[in-house]
Amino acid sequence: MNNIYETDSIFSGTKGWEQLRTLLAAYRHAGIYILVDENTTKFCLPVLLEKCPELGSAAVITAPGSESNKTVAGVEHIWRSLAKANAVRNSLLLCLGGGVITDMGGFAAATFKRGIDFVHIPTTLLAMVDAALGGKTGVNLDSVKNQLGVFEMPKAVFIFDTFLETLSKRQKLSGFAEMIKHAVIDSPDHFEKLMLLNSPEKICNDANILESVLVKVAVVKQDPKEAGIRKALNFGHTIGHAIETYSQKHDTNPLLHGEAIAIGMICESFISMQLLGFPEDDLRQISAFINRHFPEYRLKPAIAEELFVYMYQDKKSFDPMQLNFSLLRGIGKPVWDQLAGEKLVRESLHFYTNLDAGFFV
Amino acid sequence: MNNIYETDSIFSGTKGWEQLRTLLAAYRHAGIYILVDENTTKFCLPVLLEKCPELGSAAVITAPGSESNKTVAGVEHIWRSLAKANAVRNSLLLCLGGGVITDMGGFAAATFKRGIDFVHIPTTLLAMVDAALGGKTGVNLDSVKNQLGVFEMPKAVFIFDTFLETLSKRQKLSGFAEMIKHAVIDSPDHFEKLMLLNSPEKICNDANILESVLVKVAVVKQDPKEAGIRKALNFGHTIGHAIETYSQKHDTNPLLHGEAIAIGMICESFISMQLLGFPEDDLRQISAFINRHFPEYRLKPAIAEELFVYMYQDKKSFDPMQLNFSLLRGIGKPVWDQLAGEKLVRESLHFYTNLDAGFFV
Repeated sequence: MNNIYETDSIFSGTKGWEQLRTLLAAYRHAGIYILVDENTTKFCLPVLLEKCPELGSAAVITAPGSESNKTVAGVEHIWRSLAKANAVRNSLLLCLGGGVITDMGGFAAATFKRGIDFVHIPTTLLAMVDAALGGKTGVNLDSVKNQLGVFEMPKAVFIFDTFLETLSKRQKLSGFAEMIKHAVIDSPDHFEKLMLLNSPEKICNDANILESVLVKVAVVKQDPKEAGIRKALNFGHTIGHAIETYSQKHDTNPLLHGEAIAIGMICESFISMQLLGFPEDDLRQISAFINRHFPEYRLKPAIAEELFVYMYQDKKSFDPMQLNFSLLRGIGKPVWDQLAGEKLVRESLHFYTNLDAGFFV
Repeated sequence: MNNIYETDSIFSGTKGWEQLRTLLAAYRHAGIYILVDENTTKFCLPVLLEKCPELGSAAVITAPGSESNKTVAGVEHIWRSLAKANAVRNSLLLCLGGGVITDMGGFAAATFKRGIDFVHIPTTLLAMVDAALGGKTGVNLDSVKNQLGVFEMPKAVFIFDTFLETLSKRQKLSGFAEMIKHAVIDSPDHFEKLMLLNSPEKICNDANILESVLVKVAVVKQDPKEAGIRKALNFGHTIGHAIETYSQKHDTNPLLHGEAIAIGMICESFISMQLLGFPEDDLRQISAFINRHFPEYRLKPAIAEELFVYMYQDKKSFDPMQLNFSLLRGIGKPVWDQLAGEKLVRESLHFYTNLDAGFFV
């Protein structure tokens, strides 16, 4: 099953390892640098070095892999490490890690000496199906997510399911949320298929992952700079990002990205129904499916004001007075640049909070 | 004489002000932000506001305009100010200042929310003929010049010689150095013409400036990402940048960019002669012309080692063990990616140091 979904720049399986070694050979002379976090240095770097022994002499840069460290200071550490290790304009940065490492590493590479090449080897399900794809790099500023960044495509992305073996269930769930998003913006068939798999554990193999990857790759190819259809990928993210930022600030054990997006997708499916006639049956199905797999998060009504602050700061916002959403007319029918008022957003949060109370009964 | 050299995105004179106002109208709704430094806020902002009264309500961001403040901390200040003033993805940043403001403002804009539009209104001769053109943005890291940056073109550049009225003679001289560079890589005629003007004071008008601007614009159009001919613009810069960095670190009244580049051009003309047969007569002429206009800078032989450190860190370097130069076969005949050893570089520094001692006698 390997490689059947391969695109120009996305590789996996045995052939993926061969492609990686071919690519590395081209950078041998100019220097290869490996960016890892405290986990991937332990669990993933040994696998990489075993498969690619020529990387034995590569300089390794370690950065903290947590969202709260995806900061300007974090990028500065990578820039300094590259400079100190004499990276030159045609060197290569290999980002081995989750979304924090691929976002921050991509940004560091794209801005070092006005841009050096970089390659992503994502090691979390979330990074494989989302963060590592599509050339969005990003860094947080004062806890506003991805406030800084550039669009810059990695030279290649390598998907190896072997790296998922050491992943926690919660982290798998986080990636699973983005797979649900790809399915609902793609087609009813894709969503049906995902519901049949019915478990974030079962989907962790190259073939399933690549099917989800392809949805994103196809959208990005049509619209790399997010002028139109790429915005469809932001479904669930206006509210989801705000909840994620809130949780990062206030919770001792904050929500993972996908966990926040899962809540965002329920809320924004509700808004889709109210605003665009998204079928109530589909809202019921999405909500029930997410609710079954994801733990409940208590959203007190009082937090809405703080969420609005984050929503207005959202990059998608083009009017400082309006809330901007990517929504669904139906499953497989995404629309974007939809405006909704604060009242409807409050109702959608209320809808999520009362899911268990039997809203549909 | 105004506007005859106009290109798609470079405007000057009366028509320039009209073009600027037309452009501003398109961003009115999404917000316009003006970046100034401590000088341009006093001397240039009032002129701009008088010519474009619609900018009266624009938020003004002040950043220090000195090279030593072209740092990550400086960019962070601009990012934070944009965020605080609610800049959105389709807002405009208007950079009103010298090269530090256009370099740093361009970088801040190109990386804020993955890129907002920016426009340059350079207020120094150096920025008009060089820094503001060609889409190189840049920030220093640990005193290595432009270690960070991206390639991103401003939406437009506006050249108004009125801003040069308050410029010091030294600053005019700094810009004059880059005009000499454009002339020697362009043609013998262009260099002859510049020598006849014979004074950095006399060249400060739109027509002369635009003639120099055109050399750079034509080169950048052919090779925006500096894969080939654009490297010709680095003539004088391998040694010049190293001397500039050295001076920033050690001198209480450090060299301005152009002053350092002027020395670099003498040294690299010497290297061109030794390596590529650049005519000795032309070396004599360039050296004498620069020596007449620019003050002497004492280069002690002992500093060569420190200069080499900076030269190896140069972005142009593609081999961590070689020094890379953009040189001349003759006036109007630039070549690039030329390698030279440390010995020849030492000789070229010695040549500069002994100019007054009558090297040619």
